[in-house]
Amino acid sequence: MTAGVSGFRFSGIAAGIKRNGRRDLALVVAEKPAVAAGIFTRDLVRAAPVVVAEQRVRFGTASAVLVNSGTANACTGEAGMQATLDTTAAIAKALELRVEHVLPASTGVIGLVLPADKVIRTTGELVSSLSPDGVDAFAEAILTTDRFPKVAHAEIEGGATILGIAKGAGMIHPDVGVAAPHATMLVFLFTDAVIGRDALEEALVQAADATFNCVSVDGDTSTNDTVIALASGASEVSVTAEALVGPMTQVCDELARAMVKDGEGASHVAEIRVSGLTTDGDAHQIAKTVATSVLVKTAMFGQDANWGRILAAAGRAGVHFDPARACISVGNVEIVHDGLSVGAEAEQRAGKIMGGESYTIDVVLGDGPGKARYLTSDLGHAYVDVNAGYRS
Amino acid sequence: MTAGVSGFRFSGIAAGIKRNGRRDLALVVAEKPAVAAGIFTRDLVRAAPVVVAEQRVRFGTASAVLVNSGTANACTGEAGMQATLDTTAAIAKALELRVEHVLPASTGVIGLVLPADKVIRTTGELVSSLSPDGVDAFAEAILTTDRFPKVAHAEIEGGATILGIAKGAGMIHPDVGVAAPHATMLVFLFTDAVIGRDALEEALVQAADATFNCVSVDGDTSTNDTVIALASGASEVSVTAEALVGPMTQVCDELARAMVKDGEGASHVAEIRVSGLTTDGDAHQIAKTVATSVLVKTAMFGQDANWGRILAAAGRAGVHFDPARACISVGNVEIVHDGLSVGAEAEQRAGKIMGGESYTIDVVLGDGPGKARYLTSDLGHAYVDVNAGYRS
Repeated sequence: MTAGVSGFRFSGIAAGIKRNGRRDLALVVAEKPAVAAGIFTRDLVRAAPVVVAEQRVRFGTASAVLVNSGTANACTGEAGMQATLDTTAAIAKALELRVEHVLPASTGVIGLVLPADKVIRTTGELVSSLSPDGVDAFAEAILTTDRFPKVAHAEIEGGATILGIAKGAGMIHPDVGVAAPHATMLVFLFTDAVIGRDALEEALVQAADATFNCVSVDGDTSTNDTVIALASGASEVSVTAEALVGPMTQVCDELARAMVKDGEGASHVAEIRVSGLTTDGDAHQIAKTVATSVLVKTAMFGQDANWGRILAAAGRAGVHFDPARACISVGNVEIVHDGLSVGAEAEQRAGKIMGGESYTIDVVLGDGPGKARYLTSDLGHAYVDVNAGYRS
Repeated sequence: MTAGVSGFRFSGIAAGIKRNGRRDLALVVAEKPAVAAGIFTRDLVRAAPVVVAEQRVRFGTASAVLVNSGTANACTGEAGMQATLDTTAAIAKALELRVEHVLPASTGVIGLVLPADKVIRTTGELVSSLSPDGVDAFAEAILTTDRFPKVAHAEIEGGATILGIAKGAGMIHPDVGVAAPHATMLVFLFTDAVIGRDALEEALVQAADATFNCVSVDGDTSTNDTVIALASGASEVSVTAEALVGPMTQVCDELARAMVKDGEGASHVAEIRVSGLTTDGDAHQIAKTVATSVLVKTAMFGQDANWGRILAAAGRAGVHFDPARACISVGNVEIVHDGLSVGAEAEQRAGKIMGGESYTIDVVLGDGPGKARYLTSDLGHAYVDVNAGYRS
């Protein structure tokens, strides 16, 4: 059983939204109104719960998060918006909360309206099963195509703790920022530290930029991606943004790695590390282009140290570098030195490393200080199966 | 047998570069020095033949193009450059041409040096088999993973003709421009019209922008993409750029469609037509983002009218539009109207259209004048097989 965090109670039930009868409705409630911050998808096309949650989280305080899986409630117009408003109102009423303090989140198929009646009908069950020990039920209820739930913990200096619960396996290419949400990655962070709203948001933005915004399964972003952080203050340990950002990044990094590992049909995770550029931004652009290259990802599936595809992808990123100085290593095996192949034997050794569950690919493109990293997964038959058939 | 164009002789032989013994060396020679123009990959990482051809084509005149398949001769450093220089010198010597008038092009695996000895050893055979009727041998010798050769003809006003020969099936996402080549798409255009160098280049840039630069198989560009146009003048029919651009675009469009149809493992081709934006550039950006979305391409494979993926991809293109006004049709079946699903029945009808070999997807995002189109193919198991195993 996964431990909770003081000041929060969790639940997760089967409300009949998913056709397979699995848990699909999750709730977390803070004992007292918690300090809240959130960041959301930057996709122009945003689901109703994203629009509502972003608006409500601006108050800086929240008491509950209501999450459903099974439908994204995206591209559902007024009916979808009404369902989001009605379901959060039902939770507010049952818990005697202000409706503005209930944040919604949804994940699942785009275009299906959230069935508000199913949520309202099961609100009693959802509320009565709230428990400090309900983390696992909550984590399970937010899953869609995920193969496993994603939970991570870290300690904060002074004795407070932080818990992260995430969902995400496909359509993962987060690009979340303040006032700019997107979403089939859902991440909820809970801490019992005492912290102000601005400091919480500052830590959240920094932690997300260093982790979720450097993750790609298929290069697509979602209409629903949401990262919400709540601080209950129950530990009575006051922390600054600086003190929180370390443990929060640690939790987010663990969740990000779990999402890539769970990438739809993925069997290998590579950490693409690009360095030697003029700026970190340049390096990020190249790392992202390599990490989202379909040819690189199929070569990962084939366990083929096909450095030509890596170098060609880097070359089309729109950033200047000298290809004749490029060095590429897989794990600790250098396969390209100063733009030229090290040889077939090195490539074979690199190919063996690529048979592993996770490995690094270092791409050094000069001697500048700019560097970045990006997590990516392979693209193989299982990915095609999951994504060609997801709706049917 | 495919007809040639007056003023040019063609040949294609097996020189032993490919391991499977197929034709892998092609040559075209103009009877007299021809007017020449070329555009090349914009990838920073460029193969030796691209560097040399771009330099030589600037003279505005060329007599021969030497093409090999089997190796891209990219990322091969000085050895690769020497091989390109040596092989074109051998052709120049055998035909008594200036070496600057021999343009090289290569396609195949990155990182393998062109085996100059094999080319030099077979130069006699290559030259002696030159013939006005050698188009098919040439077209076959430039293929790599292609399932079929690609040839197209058009008539030019006044009685001249234009012939196009292309190669390309995977790693196709051309982005060619003057002084900016890239390359596993090879296109050679031959006309017997009389035209100046600047006019030929102007027509070539316009025709390529309207066709090859709106084609995507997997979103990756290549280190070797090359488009070369030669005008022999043998018809004695003088044409302007304006008169040439129509027939040249027609030939390029036919070749571009053939390349997408031959996309590695592809069984469906969609023409993504985006309209209603402020500018054509905005529309192009959205069309490109939708056309390269891995989720859209796997939905095409699954014959699933998954408009949520189309709309989400449009929303992350970085261009502003109002999702609530979006209308999407597959063929003549509207599936999204003003941002909302038309219904399950319409989606089923659209899914049936997606079972066809080729179809259109119209994405209307407002009432502005900006529009663009992009050709794309589905991504299924065959794509994974071809690309995971290409080198082995």
